[in-house]
Amino acid sequence: MNTTIADIGEKELLNRLKKFMRNGQINDDTAEITSFNKKLLINTDLVIENIHFSEVTTSPEDIGWKAIASNVSDLICSGSEKIISFSVGLVVPPNTNLQWVEGLYTGMKAAMNEFGGEIIGGDCSSGTNKMVSITAIGELSSLRLHRGNALPGDYIVTSGQHGLSRLGLALLTSEQLPNEVKLSQSLTKRAIKAHQRPSVPQEALKTLIKCKPKSLPWRAAGTDSSDGLLAAIEGICTSSECQAVLSQSSLPKDPDWPKNKIWDEWCLNGGEDYELVLSLPKDWANIFKSKLNSIQIIGHIKKGKPNIFWDNFEEIENYNSKRFNHFQS
Amino acid sequence: MNTTIADIGEKELLNRLKKFMRNGQINDDTAEITSFNKKLLINTDLVIENIHFSEVTTSPEDIGWKAIASNVSDLICSGSEKIISFSVGLVVPPNTNLQWVEGLYTGMKAAMNEFGGEIIGGDCSSGTNKMVSITAIGELSSLRLHRGNALPGDYIVTSGQHGLSRLGLALLTSEQLPNEVKLSQSLTKRAIKAHQRPSVPQEALKTLIKCKPKSLPWRAAGTDSSDGLLAAIEGICTSSECQAVLSQSSLPKDPDWPKNKIWDEWCLNGGEDYELVLSLPKDWANIFKSKLNSIQIIGHIKKGKPNIFWDNFEEIENYNSKRFNHFQS
Repeated sequence: MNTTIADIGEKELLNRLKKFMRNGQINDDTAEITSFNKKLLINTDLVIENIHFSEVTTSPEDIGWKAIASNVSDLICSGSEKIISFSVGLVVPPNTNLQWVEGLYTGMKAAMNEFGGEIIGGDCSSGTNKMVSITAIGELSSLRLHRGNALPGDYIVTSGQHGLSRLGLALLTSEQLPNEVKLSQSLTKRAIKAHQRPSVPQEALKTLIKCKPKSLPWRAAGTDSSDGLLAAIEGICTSSECQAVLSQSSLPKDPDWPKNKIWDEWCLNGGEDYELVLSLPKDWANIFKSKLNSIQIIGHIKKGKPNIFWDNFEEIENYNSKRFNHFQS
Repeated sequence: MNTTIADIGEKELLNRLKKFMRNGQINDDTAEITSFNKKLLINTDLVIENIHFSEVTTSPEDIGWKAIASNVSDLICSGSEKIISFSVGLVVPPNTNLQWVEGLYTGMKAAMNEFGGEIIGGDCSSGTNKMVSITAIGELSSLRLHRGNALPGDYIVTSGQHGLSRLGLALLTSEQLPNEVKLSQSLTKRAIKAHQRPSVPQEALKTLIKCKPKSLPWRAAGTDSSDGLLAAIEGICTSSECQAVLSQSSLPKDPDWPKNKIWDEWCLNGGEDYELVLSLPKDWANIFKSKLNSIQIIGHIKKGKPNIFWDNFEEIENYNSKRFNHFQS
């Protein structure tokens, strides 16, 4: 049961991983993809031990799932309706259990079964810390979502609740909660699922594309909220050179979410939410909201130097300093 | 001069790296590529500190160059005539000098200027050890090279000398040479260049495609010799289920290469050679050789259980155990 990678060697490791990959891929130096008459979107995500996950709190299956989900989320939130393939770079210390690696790929496969795509190749090597680098490829739909496409007058729209993953992490690590509240059982469940097995807004993108009013061009700004809701909105404001006004009463919170400023903070800056954050023409936004229950209009875009305000004109405090910075000392 | 990544933070780091990437890419979550009516080839390569390079012996510029070259080599040796793009995952400890990172990207850019392609995106994170994960994308030509395409009767052909990179490493690390010989100045120069700034067989692939006899189909086996010449031939034998017979008098050695069994070993198993190793129909092989000076016919393929022999019927000793295994303890 405790076979390590060093015990079996590189060749046998690849042999064991065969079943997770496209047929025949192991015998090939490179992978081939065909996508006639379609533009492709490419995204690379790094997942690193002790930075993005701790082996103590996260199972290899969940790490694998999340690595695929975070990548797919970026593709979807740039306008990819169809996920084609993944190339996986794996770094593990030689004393890593084979079981851990197989767990990682089992989680990746489960996510691919849900979201689409297949592993077409990659590379592996030993290293001091575990690391997974995934490059995902998807086909672009008729709608290319850019952070830089927002225009004054747009509504700010999101595909779902925010803060759940952050709460899930707190529950899983027995972290002290922001204030003493009794959480509903169903919220607890949703939060843990959001952290361990996050979904991606595939359905929302499909609906968004289908419901575009014919009179409007294919113009919408979009990004995902993997770095947090405010970070996503900030990205749109900066790239589109405009301001966002957020409705304090319309924050995209779970129905059971505790009412408190400190809890709002997790909704705004929790991160790892993997929802679509869009800037849409009003008509499109209203139709979109009518088509899917999860869709929420949370504010609007106006002219001005990039910034985010509440609808009572207060500037949102210090949000910038709360953003995730991988190199923060 | 000694600014670290932690000093400037992630945002400013990305800002500094902008100039090495496709225009406007930094503001985008994902990258877009267009390649109508062409199949694409994908390859991922990991380059890891203390496994693939040591900061003591290799400059960041050379690490960047080699990371691109090894990736491009795989694409070329699978049949890609045109390199399109690279997605780069970068992991560095927060105390890494900005100068080191800029050196790395300068080396990558120099290689892209030589071989084609551009950086279209990626991801960066902190981590305990330096690591670069590159996924390269190229367009497939009319010739798809697979390790599994060899047939009995083929000639084994390579695009250039082998062992030079291994000698270069020995010279750069003041390693004891296999036996005391006086190396020519020009060999020393070629060996160090082969190790620090390896070339890739782009010209050879173009010529190979151009010179195919019309009577023959687009069938050839091929791989690159980045893991060593014998490892490449072994890969072809295993995937194609055939045997290779190597001509002892035709080893692809530099003209100034010392004559000795121990030096032959570096030619056969040195690694990091980045040459095309092909199994070609005789007619194609002969025409190919006549078109480019660097091309050498080094043996032939015959029926039989996968194995490699010398042309005096001796089995090649222990070559398998000498192959590079990243997880060897």
